[in-house]
Amino acid sequence: MQVKEIGEFGLIDRIARLLPFSSPSVVVGIGDDVAVLKTSGPEYLLATCDIQAEGIHFIRDAITPRQLGRKAVAINVSDVAAMGGNPSWILVSLAISESTDVAFIEDLYRGMSEQAALAGACIVGGNLSRLGSGLVIDITLLGQISPEHLVLRSGAQAGDSIFVTGYPGESRAGLELILRSDIEIGESFRKRVLERHLTPQPRLREGRILARSGLVHAMIDVSDGVLADLAHICEASGKGAYIPAASIPVSEAAAEVCRAAGHDVLDWVLRGGEDYELLFTADSGAATEVKNLLAETGLPCHRIGYITDRAGVIQVGEGNGIFGGSGKRGWDHFGGDKG
Amino acid sequence: MQVKEIGEFGLIDRIARLLPFSSPSVVVGIGDDVAVLKTSGPEYLLATCDIQAEGIHFIRDAITPRQLGRKAVAINVSDVAAMGGNPSWILVSLAISESTDVAFIEDLYRGMSEQAALAGACIVGGNLSRLGSGLVIDITLLGQISPEHLVLRSGAQAGDSIFVTGYPGESRAGLELILRSDIEIGESFRKRVLERHLTPQPRLREGRILARSGLVHAMIDVSDGVLADLAHICEASGKGAYIPAASIPVSEAAAEVCRAAGHDVLDWVLRGGEDYELLFTADSGAATEVKNLLAETGLPCHRIGYITDRAGVIQVGEGNGIFGGSGKRGWDHFGGDKG
Repeated sequence: MQVKEIGEFGLIDRIARLLPFSSPSVVVGIGDDVAVLKTSGPEYLLATCDIQAEGIHFIRDAITPRQLGRKAVAINVSDVAAMGGNPSWILVSLAISESTDVAFIEDLYRGMSEQAALAGACIVGGNLSRLGSGLVIDITLLGQISPEHLVLRSGAQAGDSIFVTGYPGESRAGLELILRSDIEIGESFRKRVLERHLTPQPRLREGRILARSGLVHAMIDVSDGVLADLAHICEASGKGAYIPAASIPVSEAAAEVCRAAGHDVLDWVLRGGEDYELLFTADSGAATEVKNLLAETGLPCHRIGYITDRAGVIQVGEGNGIFGGSGKRGWDHFGGDKG
Repeated sequence: MQVKEIGEFGLIDRIARLLPFSSPSVVVGIGDDVAVLKTSGPEYLLATCDIQAEGIHFIRDAITPRQLGRKAVAINVSDVAAMGGNPSWILVSLAISESTDVAFIEDLYRGMSEQAALAGACIVGGNLSRLGSGLVIDITLLGQISPEHLVLRSGAQAGDSIFVTGYPGESRAGLELILRSDIEIGESFRKRVLERHLTPQPRLREGRILARSGLVHAMIDVSDGVLADLAHICEASGKGAYIPAASIPVSEAAAEVCRAAGHDVLDWVLRGGEDYELLFTADSGAATEVKNLLAETGLPCHRIGYITDRAGVIQVGEGNGIFGGSGKRGWDHFGGDKG
């Protein structure tokens, strides 16, 4: 049996079953984006890592090394942001061919260092390795958080409202412009969606504000796609979700690119991935308060639906929903669409 | 300018200069194998990572997935051992082609989990990614240590004796048997050197005993080769070293393979790399005490020379030494021999 037959999440389930050994020091382990660990101090340690592999996660000609460096760090910061945590330290593992330009590597580190500084973290070590061809970057980000501020994906409650920041789908629209040169689109829209794809801004400040408010029950960052990440929340919480089609926020820029590319924009918004927005649930009575909290950051926030007690069922649309049914939908590193 | 022109250590120097931003929380940062970090508690956090890339660090047909998993973890444990630390948590980043056998991945994780358990650590997370072809494993190991037990590579003092555990060079002999099928060698020697290469045993217990003894001034694990790692100690300590040829420990097994392969055995012992033994310095008056401390572990320990105040000069041999001169010698991931 090959990996592609069971997909990324099937493989993670099998791996988790092989690892019986745990420890009282592990608050959250295998299966989450971020491990939560008890050190000798009052704060929890957060640990997460993410690979960017050439040809899989990026195309070398479509992104500058500086942008790539920023993005490789940003996607890890986004994971820590979604717990409400504070990024502290970064390890960089880099596997490159020996013919790689030194200037390329230096620009890559400039980008990583910039994004690290924005997040209040610093690069403290790593590893350099040769690779036959291509480029693989693995970033490990360590963060810290007071236990009382920690928000997990497992706390969603039936009746909670579901919120998402920003405009998911724009990153997918940016990717489309990279993959296809034939799409005609206005310059401001082009710039916007390319930026969203190439230099995503992790919602660190917003994550902290939300986590410290005490209003948020469950939170995750949107890396696999809104539906897939909502499925992660529902699975961890033993809940379901309902998203009325009319409540899905669609940005003008994404809609324009989608129209020009001949795609369904709701598909991009719900399953595009790499948005690095925050997806969270909070008591429905707190909706106004949540929006007011985020208003000072200038980042839009939309209520897209609510949590149900129908475990594992995520329904989108009105009654006979456009994506009715259950399961994980979105970006799977091996299997593609497992819906 | 390409990476191979300046080598691994030249690249690390350039990268370190690009990273001005540090933090009071960083006790040891870029340039060491392990970052030492101040958390909110009394213990320091240790963080290290190492990549194993197919075709560069291993040949898939020459090592079982279980052995590969053990080794990928062991080489990180070895880094923490050389500081006297306690391994706690592991993140596994794995980039694999989608046609990889699930059974292969499961055996890989079995091996990682076994070696983690031996070290008292557990796998708490990671990342799975697709790769066009081949296999890249990046392991991040987090450990903890009381500040008073920490041993760095920077503490060597002129007049210190230099010690090494076990028999460096055996791992290189094992690699030779993997690379060449034409070498005839007795079965017990073959088994011994292959084991040293394929399933290295990190010297965790020994590292802790040495660090807690208060006798050791500087310590490192031998991954790049005895001379290269001694150069790391000398550089960090602003010292030099002298190694009389007669004091270099040569195992019978390594000597036999070397003879059959037509190589110089001292070259393998001093520059072979991947030994994962401990190389350390201690007050010369403490030599007997040091050996007694390790006697209970059953691991041999040899005094191979002493630290001098001739900064950067590492002399091997009698007077006109066989490797006279300065600089780093050993395994460089890009440049090979930079001596």
